[in-house]
Amino acid sequence: MLTGRSVEQKRKVVAAVTAAAADALDCSPNTVRILITEHGPEEFSVAGVTAGQRAEEQAEQIPIGESK
Amino acid sequence: MLTGRSVEQKRKVVAAVTAAAADALDCSPNTVRILITEHGPEEFSVAGVTAGQRAEEQAEQIPIGESK
Amino acid sequence: MLTGRSVEQKRKVVAAVTAAAADALDCSPNTVRILITEHGPEEFSVAGVTAGQRAEEQAEQIPIGESK
Amino acid sequence: MLTGRSVEQKRKVVAAVTAAAADALDCSPNTVRILITEHGPEEFSVAGVTAGQRAEEQAEQIPIGESK
Amino acid sequence: MLTGRSVEQKRKVVAAVTAAAADALDCSPNTVRILITEHGPEEFSVAGVTAGQRAEEQAEQIPIGESK
Amino acid sequence: MLTGRSVEQKRKVVAAVTAAAADALDCSPNTVRILITEHGPEEFSVAGVTAGQRAEEQAEQIPIGESK
Repeated sequence: MLTGRSVEQKRKVVAAVTAAAADALDCSPNTVRILITEHGPEEFSVAGVTAGQRAEEQAEQIPIGESK
Repeated sequence: MLTGRSVEQKRKVVAAVTAAAADALDCSPNTVRILITEHGPEEFSVAGVTAGQRAEEQAEQIPIGESK
Repeated sequence: MLTGRSVEQKRKVVAAVTAAAADALDCSPNTVRILITEHGPEEFSVAGVTAGQRAEEQAEQIPIGESK
Repeated sequence: MLTGRSVEQKRKVVAAVTAAAADALDCSPNTVRILITEHGPEEFSVAGVTAGQRAEEQAEQIPIGESK
Repeated sequence: MLTGRSVEQKRKVVAAVTAAAADALDCSPNTVRILITEHGPEEFSVAGVTAGQRAEEQAEQIPIGESK
Repeated sequence: MLTGRSVEQKRKVVAAVTAAAADALDCSPNTVRILITEHGPEEFSVAGVTAGQRAEEQAEQIPIGESK
């Protein structure tokens, strides 16, 4: 997932995903292992544009004087 | 995961895991993509023993005359 | 990628992607290795719905009598 | 693997694993490439509990007055 | 790895690699899990040429009349 | 890929690879997502020797008095 999640969010997501997977597949949570790989905004792209690039482009598209 | 899950189980697990992840990370389910990679019993090992090998060894350990 | 591509398509895409990557990163094509992993329609999901499930749902949405 | 291994350990493990794989598969060591991906204690979980969380819980379980 | 290895080779390589990794990293073999992903000759490329394509090209380079 | 590429190089390579893949597979660039995982010189090995180790060995092979 993208970098920037807190320790609390990571602990919450692995607990929730493990419970959901074990329940749906009817297997022990002990057999569920999760490896989180974090990607920075320049290490993830959709349609050939990185997340960082997209954020820059969106910031540039707000006209001067706009309050957002 | 190990091979052998039904289409129903696969649809159930991707729905459950996507909902759990989106809820825990407070993001849209649309941003959650899941790729399932299935591994046969000889393509997965713990402690240097494949799942197929372990199943064979456990079958062999049942003494003759046992009802299970 | 999804299953179903021909040998010709696979050869075309690895040649094109290798050339693009080597050119963009200014490195030798010899250092570019590609592993293709194919996923069937029930092994890929967006928003908790597998590709196979989505195809089924779209087929069901075509009203009776429609020529498509 | 978990973060925290020294350069010496990394060099030792890739040499040992490459030799073992080439020998077992009867192929040239030149065909063996290893990519190490390191995961921090909050990026790895078993049974829905991250390694960091487990370490915290184990520290809390040691009663006051215990020497270890 | 490329498809085509026997069950015996798979059992041999996971045993050997697990022992090598556990020894080099000084950790229990129980913590070593291996997932084997097999790739066919058209799902692996070096320098933009798949393994299947390379095999074809090499076969074509043997002149007529050559005994190999 | 190895660590050390600039933001510009990353943006260039994801744009080029996305265009090449979409063109070769005749699909929309919107369906192409790229995750870049960067590996340091001690997290990548060929033939059991890490990139860092190889660089060290090559530096040592330059005889005294050589200007490089």
